[in-house]
Amino acid sequence: MAPNDPRPAPIITPPDAEEMALRLTRVRERMAAEDLDAYVAHCPDNVFYLTNFANYIHERPFVLVIRMDGPIRFIVPQLEEEHVRIRSVGDIELRRYFEFPAPPGEEWSVQLHDALAGARRVGVESTCPLQVADEVVAERVGSDVVDEARFVKTPYEIGRIAHASEVISAGHEELLAGSRPDTPIIGLFGSVTRSMTGRMLRDMPHANMLASDFAAVVQPPSVSHDPHNFTDIFSQFEQGGPHVSVVNCRVNGYGAEIERTFFLNHVPDAARERFDVMLEARRIAFEGLRPGASMSAIDQNVRDHFEKHGYLDHLLHRTGHSFGVTGHEAPFLAVGYDRVAEPGMLFSIEPGIYFEGVGGFRFSDTVLVTESGNVSLTTAPETLEELTLER
Amino acid sequence: MAPNDPRPAPIITPPDAEEMALRLTRVRERMAAEDLDAYVAHCPDNVFYLTNFANYIHERPFVLVIRMDGPIRFIVPQLEEEHVRIRSVGDIELRRYFEFPAPPGEEWSVQLHDALAGARRVGVESTCPLQVADEVVAERVGSDVVDEARFVKTPYEIGRIAHASEVISAGHEELLAGSRPDTPIIGLFGSVTRSMTGRMLRDMPHANMLASDFAAVVQPPSVSHDPHNFTDIFSQFEQGGPHVSVVNCRVNGYGAEIERTFFLNHVPDAARERFDVMLEARRIAFEGLRPGASMSAIDQNVRDHFEKHGYLDHLLHRTGHSFGVTGHEAPFLAVGYDRVAEPGMLFSIEPGIYFEGVGGFRFSDTVLVTESGNVSLTTAPETLEELTLER
Repeated sequence: MAPNDPRPAPIITPPDAEEMALRLTRVRERMAAEDLDAYVAHCPDNVFYLTNFANYIHERPFVLVIRMDGPIRFIVPQLEEEHVRIRSVGDIELRRYFEFPAPPGEEWSVQLHDALAGARRVGVESTCPLQVADEVVAERVGSDVVDEARFVKTPYEIGRIAHASEVISAGHEELLAGSRPDTPIIGLFGSVTRSMTGRMLRDMPHANMLASDFAAVVQPPSVSHDPHNFTDIFSQFEQGGPHVSVVNCRVNGYGAEIERTFFLNHVPDAARERFDVMLEARRIAFEGLRPGASMSAIDQNVRDHFEKHGYLDHLLHRTGHSFGVTGHEAPFLAVGYDRVAEPGMLFSIEPGIYFEGVGGFRFSDTVLVTESGNVSLTTAPETLEELTLER
Repeated sequence: MAPNDPRPAPIITPPDAEEMALRLTRVRERMAAEDLDAYVAHCPDNVFYLTNFANYIHERPFVLVIRMDGPIRFIVPQLEEEHVRIRSVGDIELRRYFEFPAPPGEEWSVQLHDALAGARRVGVESTCPLQVADEVVAERVGSDVVDEARFVKTPYEIGRIAHASEVISAGHEELLAGSRPDTPIIGLFGSVTRSMTGRMLRDMPHANMLASDFAAVVQPPSVSHDPHNFTDIFSQFEQGGPHVSVVNCRVNGYGAEIERTFFLNHVPDAARERFDVMLEARRIAFEGLRPGASMSAIDQNVRDHFEKHGYLDHLLHRTGHSFGVTGHEAPFLAVGYDRVAEPGMLFSIEPGIYFEGVGGFRFSDTVLVTESGNVSLTTAPETLEELTLER
């Protein structure tokens, strides 16, 4: 990084107990504000945020119980206990259960009841499965205090996402460098994701693969109008464009993404004006994203711009989502979402328009809200000239 | 396959509308038995089972509403509509919503209320997120009719899992063939998963990568006592054993697994008797698995056998789980789980015992319950002699 680079420095060390305590304090502040004396978290992302242990959803529940004092109580199947101990960081008390399913008296729910003993008002995630929520016998309140504590990243998390952004910016550069007409796209997926995984493991040899995933794909112009269409694994780069690149990852527990609309050898006439209109929408969103800005208004301004150009019907999604321990989470830059941006939040800025027979037009970056505005943590070419690749 | 092979023939064609109708009929039979006139499914596995569309859980809900007649109503974000159309099979009516979050009147929940209009008693999955379940305004009943319809596989599904089992049996053979002392295990992960992915794509060029995943790993003896411990990505094969191989996959939407305890060049004295005791537990489970057998009793018989040998404290998990559109699902061979095996069910048979300082002892196979007993769809070496590899 250059000396005057406004981006935060990357961090590659694991979180320490102090970092985990800071997160727990933020959760408890919200619990107090909502008059909760206990909270039940089941979402694997919330569990990872508060414990550094990554699990995937399967039938054996992993459940956190947070009280207003004492350690986090972490209910885990005995099968997982030893490596939960290896990975977890912070003030955590493990409470193991035998198995799922289990005979009466040995189920996970016995541990939950015990961890909640004496609780009066218990917050439960809005994504909590019914079978977990239904075991709460005290007054149950739908509440997303952990998700909301995650909205503003800690300085440590910002450093980790800065690192993830470096990894994927290099991966995206490699993806563009390898794009050639009439060659299969899938070949690059393999080489670019291996490069990014290798970089991660060099930087963090103990990276948790269960908290890591790498994607590096390109939609050719024949499908780029349908932005989540990856149905043809044998699709090839084409002459012209718009191609849309998508590199998104969780790099040892932290998400980031970068996307570009690009062309090979020539720019079709139908693409030029649409590309410019998209780029202007992106500029509007970048200009609007600063502390105090309404997330809904940022998206509305983008929509107004597209409407002015007659493209409102070609919009398929909101302007952005957040990042953190996932690559896709709240809060959102979306009409109807009435929250205000704060320093330390992160967003994708990715207004997009889509035209059957022409293709899709979208950039995305991983953008940090700063005290004075914002800064993109990801880097990639920005102009039509740079994104018209001669091959 | 040999002419007298008792295993069902592999199937590699996509499901047709008739297959999807059969599944829906099975669900509706259960709905009728539970006096439900509507059912809400959110679990991606249940959605895939009934639509052939694979999504992953993120914040934009995909919700199925099943009434007692008419098409399945499938509520999807507009961003996904086009490729939902490409992938889905059967009698499905798409109901799209704008975005999540969305302004009042354009949310996904408006579509849910509409699809449930007039419903009296609505079944909701036990894994359903609170925010979805809470939108059901009619009488809400916790019910797992889709999960339960999945217990007994259709003939088509059995053929697909037979195919998945062939793919992973070949992958497991390659994994054992490549195992050499003092070489990194991660290298084989890459080559074996690429082989299996390649085989899948040759057999099914339009395989859905979102419904496919491949793992091929080995725990060396230093960690095999902790069966889900894959924390050291740089671990190496060791002299001796017990190593435990794990190959589990979803091959274009269908799960299977195979695991073996094996040794390189020599078998430590501490391992011989434990290996034999595990093998005998496995024999007991295979012998017990037949139509009419109690799933709880199969696991209890395994436990009794281990207790007789003084190893009850070294048991970390139940005898088995099922497979289907996932690699890990109900029903379970587990004490306290009082259901009865039926022809067309599939189970892993994987009794295991674990000893710190010695290692873990476990085989697993993908086993079909037949009219007369069972047949393993996966194939791998079975004896200590075959599993002591000279390298």
